[in-house]
Amino acid sequence: MIHFGNDYHRTGHPAVLSALVKAQDSYPGYGEDPLCEKARAEIRNACAAPEAGVHFLMGGTQVNTTAIAATLRPWQGVISADSGHINTHETGSVEHSGHKILALPGHLGKITAAQVTQCVEEYRSSGTMEHAVEPAMVYISQPSEYGTVYSLAELRELREVCDRFSLTLLVDGARLGYGLAAGDATLPDLARLCDIFTIGGTKCGALFGEAIVFPHGGDAYFRNAMKQNSALLAKGWLLGAQFSALFHDNLYEEITAHANEQAQRIAHAFAAAGIDMLFDSPTNQQFALLTQEQEDELSQNYVCQFFEPHGDLRAVRFCTSWSTNDEDIDALVGDIANLAR
Amino acid sequence: MIHFGNDYHRTGHPAVLSALVKAQDSYPGYGEDPLCEKARAEIRNACAAPEAGVHFLMGGTQVNTTAIAATLRPWQGVISADSGHINTHETGSVEHSGHKILALPGHLGKITAAQVTQCVEEYRSSGTMEHAVEPAMVYISQPSEYGTVYSLAELRELREVCDRFSLTLLVDGARLGYGLAAGDATLPDLARLCDIFTIGGTKCGALFGEAIVFPHGGDAYFRNAMKQNSALLAKGWLLGAQFSALFHDNLYEEITAHANEQAQRIAHAFAAAGIDMLFDSPTNQQFALLTQEQEDELSQNYVCQFFEPHGDLRAVRFCTSWSTNDEDIDALVGDIANLAR
Amino acid sequence: MIHFGNDYHRTGHPAVLSALVKAQDSYPGYGEDPLCEKARAEIRNACAAPEAGVHFLMGGTQVNTTAIAATLRPWQGVISADSGHINTHETGSVEHSGHKILALPGHLGKITAAQVTQCVEEYRSSGTMEHAVEPAMVYISQPSEYGTVYSLAELRELREVCDRFSLTLLVDGARLGYGLAAGDATLPDLARLCDIFTIGGTKCGALFGEAIVFPHGGDAYFRNAMKQNSALLAKGWLLGAQFSALFHDNLYEEITAHANEQAQRIAHAFAAAGIDMLFDSPTNQQFALLTQEQEDELSQNYVCQFFEPHGDLRAVRFCTSWSTNDEDIDALVGDIANLAR
Amino acid sequence: MIHFGNDYHRTGHPAVLSALVKAQDSYPGYGEDPLCEKARAEIRNACAAPEAGVHFLMGGTQVNTTAIAATLRPWQGVISADSGHINTHETGSVEHSGHKILALPGHLGKITAAQVTQCVEEYRSSGTMEHAVEPAMVYISQPSEYGTVYSLAELRELREVCDRFSLTLLVDGARLGYGLAAGDATLPDLARLCDIFTIGGTKCGALFGEAIVFPHGGDAYFRNAMKQNSALLAKGWLLGAQFSALFHDNLYEEITAHANEQAQRIAHAFAAAGIDMLFDSPTNQQFALLTQEQEDELSQNYVCQFFEPHGDLRAVRFCTSWSTNDEDIDALVGDIANLAR
Repeated sequence: MIHFGNDYHRTGHPAVLSALVKAQDSYPGYGEDPLCEKARAEIRNACAAPEAGVHFLMGGTQVNTTAIAATLRPWQGVISADSGHINTHETGSVEHSGHKILALPGHLGKITAAQVTQCVEEYRSSGTMEHAVEPAMVYISQPSEYGTVYSLAELRELREVCDRFSLTLLVDGARLGYGLAAGDATLPDLARLCDIFTIGGTKCGALFGEAIVFPHGGDAYFRNAMKQNSALLAKGWLLGAQFSALFHDNLYEEITAHANEQAQRIAHAFAAAGIDMLFDSPTNQQFALLTQEQEDELSQNYVCQFFEPHGDLRAVRFCTSWSTNDEDIDALVGDIANLAR
Repeated sequence: MIHFGNDYHRTGHPAVLSALVKAQDSYPGYGEDPLCEKARAEIRNACAAPEAGVHFLMGGTQVNTTAIAATLRPWQGVISADSGHINTHETGSVEHSGHKILALPGHLGKITAAQVTQCVEEYRSSGTMEHAVEPAMVYISQPSEYGTVYSLAELRELREVCDRFSLTLLVDGARLGYGLAAGDATLPDLARLCDIFTIGGTKCGALFGEAIVFPHGGDAYFRNAMKQNSALLAKGWLLGAQFSALFHDNLYEEITAHANEQAQRIAHAFAAAGIDMLFDSPTNQQFALLTQEQEDELSQNYVCQFFEPHGDLRAVRFCTSWSTNDEDIDALVGDIANLAR
Repeated sequence: MIHFGNDYHRTGHPAVLSALVKAQDSYPGYGEDPLCEKARAEIRNACAAPEAGVHFLMGGTQVNTTAIAATLRPWQGVISADSGHINTHETGSVEHSGHKILALPGHLGKITAAQVTQCVEEYRSSGTMEHAVEPAMVYISQPSEYGTVYSLAELRELREVCDRFSLTLLVDGARLGYGLAAGDATLPDLARLCDIFTIGGTKCGALFGEAIVFPHGGDAYFRNAMKQNSALLAKGWLLGAQFSALFHDNLYEEITAHANEQAQRIAHAFAAAGIDMLFDSPTNQQFALLTQEQEDELSQNYVCQFFEPHGDLRAVRFCTSWSTNDEDIDALVGDIANLAR
Repeated sequence: MIHFGNDYHRTGHPAVLSALVKAQDSYPGYGEDPLCEKARAEIRNACAAPEAGVHFLMGGTQVNTTAIAATLRPWQGVISADSGHINTHETGSVEHSGHKILALPGHLGKITAAQVTQCVEEYRSSGTMEHAVEPAMVYISQPSEYGTVYSLAELRELREVCDRFSLTLLVDGARLGYGLAAGDATLPDLARLCDIFTIGGTKCGALFGEAIVFPHGGDAYFRNAMKQNSALLAKGWLLGAQFSALFHDNLYEEITAHANEQAQRIAHAFAAAGIDMLFDSPTNQQFALLTQEQEDELSQNYVCQFFEPHGDLRAVRFCTSWSTNDEDIDALVGDIANLAR
């Protein structure tokens, strides 16, 4: 079986694993070690944000929940696309921390500045604000859960809305590398436009781990929040070693760009076979609209993932990663060409 | 100004107030007094539920939140119409207690057994159940926030779904009296079909207070939950006295039926004036579709409440209560007839 | 039976009840009514705090929990005497809201500025601050759960510590009237020295209700917190009417001073009978050290409350209130004199 | 510098690291992979608990908080020694999840069945149970935070109390290996006597990770709780690989016994130098009572950790681990012998 089921089905990139294995000294615990310091410096540099607070956590749900719970006051909520990971696949972690998700209908996984404006204005004009949850944060995923990417212009518009209404802008970058490689918003752009953003490791070549960046600082309290949310790894240098490797010599960029390219080959193969995609995705997730028979046929040799029904067809996700090699793609491309129609 | 703004703009019904004033003895605290016992007995009798657990709390948000938080496990959520009071007007109290509301699109404030079935089946068939919030409770309002009423047949269908999927059925009866008077489901029906329901006092003639009924018992823990949620009134007999008065000689039924009748007079007046209603409401809330000019004209003499926009028109709520008298209605009916068109 | 069991076993003072009954107009809901405005003005005036934010809630657990949860960030905790009401008799409401109580050993219900200093300094010097709960608030009860009173000098010392360490000083005044009448700290002193304090109604002559005062303002968010914590009474004027009555013509002061005096008569009677008190209490709670036989004998005619064992003896609480009259005390004094020894 | 500061200052044991590196296949996510299955089987076997539920989480705070929050109802609390890790070093994680810790005074880190009995009986006899937190779980650490070990007899007594009062017995085994090697209670004993226990990896030779064992099953819900608490690692096989290595050929037992032996050499060296220990510890943590000068002298070459003051002396912790070798100990033993007195 060749795996296109997700981007976390394999261990870390060899350079990451090697860095982890080499970390054989004794280190102080809880992220206060030279490896973490080095990784922080590399990330600050890549973000052109010398004052940024940078922390390393273990997983995506953890980093989202900790950031949201540490930012909001109890009566405040977070705006999200209804398809946002926090709203669908985190077992209510945000609500478990006491906060309502104000879900707006997403379009291909994204929400617009206009939607945010409308949400806040409805709240503020209600006349009974204390009876409703105050929108205080905007959560977006870059790229989205559908693999789509916010453009720099869209991010600027969201920033403007957040400034106008004093909202915190949080970008979930669980797959950030793929978004950076595919879109026009760079790390320095994110650092300039967001209040908080995450740099996903787990799905982008690390064994595990997510970085969180507070580009403008102001995160003095965050280690307390991390510890309270079980997010302060004792052997924190395991995360520092990995992120140091990922941000050395553009590895993060390189391996996610590679995965995007492999994904484009899949998209082209489906197009050549006359098979529509759910939409045009520039990143490492591709959603093909297959018949049940086509899905069954491909599933004999490939792990792929049913995503959602689409009329009579089925949207099936094919996901690439750092480990997707040419042979994997060649095989799939060949079998797509031979699919029954 | 004559008030049709809501059903809690006046003190309690004279019989309720009188009962409260007469409670001049010394009583044990926290609801363990003879007045509460008497009220419990009367409610059990009215519900034909001799084994029912009955408790008295102070307000609607409190009784909803306490019941939900005391029933669900942390990873479970509650299904509700998107227009449900818990989802819109309780400042995220349910989420504050750690639980996600699984909001389904309501039709005139109501949800159907088929919608609940679909929600649970989607969860169970997802293959990744532990990544999503488990639907474990169904919350409905009787009557709904739109003044509509679940029929006995609809309640039976919801009960069947809840049995099939082991869901708890919670009925928010903040305005229960109006629903009982207008619909075909009686208190014994509710006691038979629900796991938990509330009997609203605040909006139905009491000064303040809500009863909660566990018709099949099993509520040994609930006083602990009440105290933890600040819902155990020190001078609990103040609630017992009120509910005892309300459930004596059918007062609860009588005053809510009266309010429904007064509301029908308003509905007829609008119909006679050629003004449409948002929908046909059998209870004490009437939603007229007015022009801005019409709303302004009526607002000179009457307190009414803008509810939601409706195309070019405005849905404006007129609400009656135990205190709405014939003179109030006569005046409004006359002014409706004279409205500019 | 004559009741000395607690100070909330009777309805409200006649003037309070009368004010409640007279509130027969239509009022806006949720505390935005003229009666609440009047009560706020009287409280601001009594506190010499013209800028104070004043809100009315329903009970003591509620006002404590809401104030604490609305003030602390998630990783912060509240310092309290181990005997503090929040630590012993609120079913873990504070923890339910997510916060640890940092309990210090109380002396007769009180804690000192030196203890607070030590607690904060230990935290700050630990070197692992993010692994422990940050002390961020000091909670004291005035009078304490033992009926003892913080002197003005003690309050000043606590204020200094709170200033030094940026701690919020919250005073639980569930029985504040008795403390004001017995001690040397006045309402304006509290307003000057505390960040937040409560003025208890339930135990001081009201039917129910507690006022909370933010003497320096800054409470814009508090109504949101109230609603989320089920603490925004729909018919809020019921609370305004009561507090208006209590703060009219010094009634609050008068009835609590009266109760203190009646309590002193009890203390003197025990002293005359050669029975020791647990300690010298200046307020409405007196703790006599009785043999089991003495307690049994008095319990035949009086409701009193076992408090805690004391060697071979039993500390038994006798509690007075606005309603304790001379006949009640005469009877008890007589029976104390006749107690078997 | 030679590290005796803690037992998590180094990477994992070579066999663990090797197993991690070798896991190069594609695996299903979230712990549903063959490596986790193998580790589960080995743990069930070592525990003689074929029906046990076994899960792998990332850290100690996480496993404690998730287990407690998933077990208790909202109004219930957990009994712990005041020195328990959950009470002192987890930033209030348990309270953050809504539950009060009922802290009992520990003796060398341990509590007794008699203390638990007294705590529960005081609660049950209070007459106002709903006003206090219900003791529903007993949390102990094996070994304790002081390195002391519960004997099999003590565990049996705790089990009996838990049975008598229907309490859940949770054993925090963050350093379980050291306790198993030093005491008379075996893994099958724990499995027979506890409801839930953890097997620490982080401090016992793993890179990271803790196993949690429900020896009698009944943990169907636990994956939901894990996901909600950010405790479901995407690449779960990273944990399975490590625990498989640790439970292969008695490695876990061997490396913790080795660390205990090295610790005994430290204890003997202090004894030989006439320096008292805080108490007699059989496990990998040794607490020497040093003068400030002695501590300063040793701190020039060794990382050790100030633990608590002890009269004029300082209790200083020396901690061994899998990586503590003979040369490390030889050096320390020599320098202890030469300490100024």
